[in-house]
Amino acid sequence: MVYLTRRERFSAAHRLMQPGLSDAENSEMYGPCSNPNWHGHNYELWVTIKGEVKPEYGYVVDLKQVSNLIREKVIDKLDHKNINLEVDFMQDRIASTENLAIAIWEQLESAISKLGVTLHKVRIQETENNSVEYFGEQ
Amino acid sequence: MVYLTRRERFSAAHRLMQPGLSDAENSEMYGPCSNPNWHGHNYELWVTIKGEVKPEYGYVVDLKQVSNLIREKVIDKLDHKNINLEVDFMQDRIASTENLAIAIWEQLESAISKLGVTLHKVRIQETENNSVEYFGEQ
Amino acid sequence: MVYLTRRERFSAAHRLMQPGLSDAENSEMYGPCSNPNWHGHNYELWVTIKGEVKPEYGYVVDLKQVSNLIREKVIDKLDHKNINLEVDFMQDRIASTENLAIAIWEQLESAISKLGVTLHKVRIQETENNSVEYFGEQ
Amino acid sequence: MVYLTRRERFSAAHRLMQPGLSDAENSEMYGPCSNPNWHGHNYELWVTIKGEVKPEYGYVVDLKQVSNLIREKVIDKLDHKNINLEVDFMQDRIASTENLAIAIWEQLESAISKLGVTLHKVRIQETENNSVEYFGEQ
Amino acid sequence: MVYLTRRERFSAAHRLMQPGLSDAENSEMYGPCSNPNWHGHNYELWVTIKGEVKPEYGYVVDLKQVSNLIREKVIDKLDHKNINLEVDFMQDRIASTENLAIAIWEQLESAISKLGVTLHKVRIQETENNSVEYFGEQ
Amino acid sequence: MVYLTRRERFSAAHRLMQPGLSDAENSEMYGPCSNPNWHGHNYELWVTIKGEVKPEYGYVVDLKQVSNLIREKVIDKLDHKNINLEVDFMQDRIASTENLAIAIWEQLESAISKLGVTLHKVRIQETENNSVEYFGEQ
Repeated sequence: MVYLTRRERFSAAHRLMQPGLSDAENSEMYGPCSNPNWHGHNYELWVTIKGEVKPEYGYVVDLKQVSNLIREKVIDKLDHKNINLEVDFMQDRIASTENLAIAIWEQLESAISKLGVTLHKVRIQETENNSVEYFGEQ
Repeated sequence: MVYLTRRERFSAAHRLMQPGLSDAENSEMYGPCSNPNWHGHNYELWVTIKGEVKPEYGYVVDLKQVSNLIREKVIDKLDHKNINLEVDFMQDRIASTENLAIAIWEQLESAISKLGVTLHKVRIQETENNSVEYFGEQ
Repeated sequence: MVYLTRRERFSAAHRLMQPGLSDAENSEMYGPCSNPNWHGHNYELWVTIKGEVKPEYGYVVDLKQVSNLIREKVIDKLDHKNINLEVDFMQDRIASTENLAIAIWEQLESAISKLGVTLHKVRIQETENNSVEYFGEQ
Repeated sequence: MVYLTRRERFSAAHRLMQPGLSDAENSEMYGPCSNPNWHGHNYELWVTIKGEVKPEYGYVVDLKQVSNLIREKVIDKLDHKNINLEVDFMQDRIASTENLAIAIWEQLESAISKLGVTLHKVRIQETENNSVEYFGEQ
Repeated sequence: MVYLTRRERFSAAHRLMQPGLSDAENSEMYGPCSNPNWHGHNYELWVTIKGEVKPEYGYVVDLKQVSNLIREKVIDKLDHKNINLEVDFMQDRIASTENLAIAIWEQLESAISKLGVTLHKVRIQETENNSVEYFGEQ
Repeated sequence: MVYLTRRERFSAAHRLMQPGLSDAENSEMYGPCSNPNWHGHNYELWVTIKGEVKPEYGYVVDLKQVSNLIREKVIDKLDHKNINLEVDFMQDRIASTENLAIAIWEQLESAISKLGVTLHKVRIQETENNSVEYFGEQ
């Protein structure tokens, strides 16, 4: 059983806000992270997959396939986008890094299992000081 | 003569666009960097100062003063902001990293010379692959 | 269940030594790490917290509160200090990275649980080659 | 119980290939990673060990001993070498990062247990985007 | 006048050797860097361009064009290749980082000047400890 | 003319202080950097050398010689030491990063010129936010 991690990156705008609150109330709750004019980040995404090494190939899974899948289902929808306004899988969710990690897990889990391996972890780094990990645990 | 560099960081939203063009025309010119819904980055800023070491202090300049000055004049105006809409010193400029470096130079130059040292370089890293340097050269 | 990690940094002096041994004996045991005139490091500290995402806020816990708590209970006591001589929670412990990780865990555990989340891991990087992790396991 | 990680580095050439296949067939399977003229990487290796802190020493294990052991059993055999042609413990294995992690685990496990601690994880980073972890799980 | 830097990466095999010397003589001169079975690196390449900011566009040059040009003329020829055997612009040169920087400068200089900007610097990082810069100075 | 940079690292304790002042006066001037019980850093040192590529060797200078020279003249005297108390070339100087860069330049300049190349720059990074460069300019 080996764990394989692929990093991808995206740059996006977002804002923390609760839909039912005013800008002033959101500002009180989230501070500058709720700026109504948006702000943004260079997000780094690490997707970890686990599986057995296929003896005839020497790998757990073709990393090119994994990378393509992450790009198609996640990066193309997030890169140079507004997470609150434009990302289908983030609708009806507060645009936090926590929710982003959970949503990316949901985007990837079944597609990755179709490659014969198991999604193990989604990790997102929002800044050099803040990051989040999700293992699919309820 | 010693060169001293201080790094500060800010996260902001922006968009490349020419005011006189439509969204479609801007999109053709700048690609996804012109998304009308914005995107954003974790910008890293390096400010380099040059001066002689003051023998009685052992330093070129009190780095705390430099850091406070950069925060007051630059970071507080950029961090968690929309560069196009909210940053006074970027009004009437396209919100590119090049223009940002020039504008930050203009914000800092005279204030830094009042500390008895010379602003040497402003460097901005927009992503891990792209960065810009400005030395005040016309 | 999401894991949230906050990085903080501190620069400190320390020395590996057993109180009952002479400088020569400590030097034999620990090598240059036991220099009686001290040496120091830029330590990086990662504190990982786990908890459920609060649906109304979109976050596990307000990261600002976590950062303030780490600064108050850990960083302010360690930064620009001598770990052997000046850090109350390191008295009667050898000033190793292992013991530092355990002591920081003890400093943070109950305060973090009062925020309604669980301390999961304390990680300290002493140099780019050496790091330590503690999960509160006996 | 504390986890201690040591990083070491090596630069090596390799090629992904199945011995029974032609160059053309290998190229179809592995793409440029199977270039018959080789390519190479700066590999980074993280070895994680777990154990209890020895109260009289303040450490889990003498890190110098661990580093020497990793260098003797792993780095000296891999650094500035061709993984396919010259590394004894990689004979009869496809020279993938996955197989390298497993083989390094096998090289280190019993030697590390003789130091009175337990090998917990071998992690190899092949590029800044790709890495592999192995915990000795079957 | 603004300086713009683009980073690209390539992984390649190489060997330091003088064509007229035996393997033993080359080994005496270059040590393990001359291993006849090759070794390799993850090279990082920074290309710095200088020019004036075009006021109507806000940039010095379209970075996408620069990146495409570097990929076409440099990266595609080096990535997953053997520098000694397969790279046309390194024929008749010892495969050192110094010569690589000079050769990449020669590959890029006129093509970049056709974009209306000036090539300022080629920087190559071979390992985290070793790097080389070339400014086209004779 | 090519510029070659070698990175080396050292971990040391230091304190900013003027010998003629009391601890209270030094504390007022330098803040926590003047803690009488010391603090410390993981310093990173980049030494840049310039010279012509020797056509028969392919390099500017044998990097191993440069690394050995830096270790002998600089790193061995600084690593795991107290800069104020134990480093001969820092006696009678305030232990600032600026003075350290100048002193390292003086330690290296003539020895490097004996290798037939020219010392171009000494760069020291004290923390991830603060660094200093010295080019031997008066």
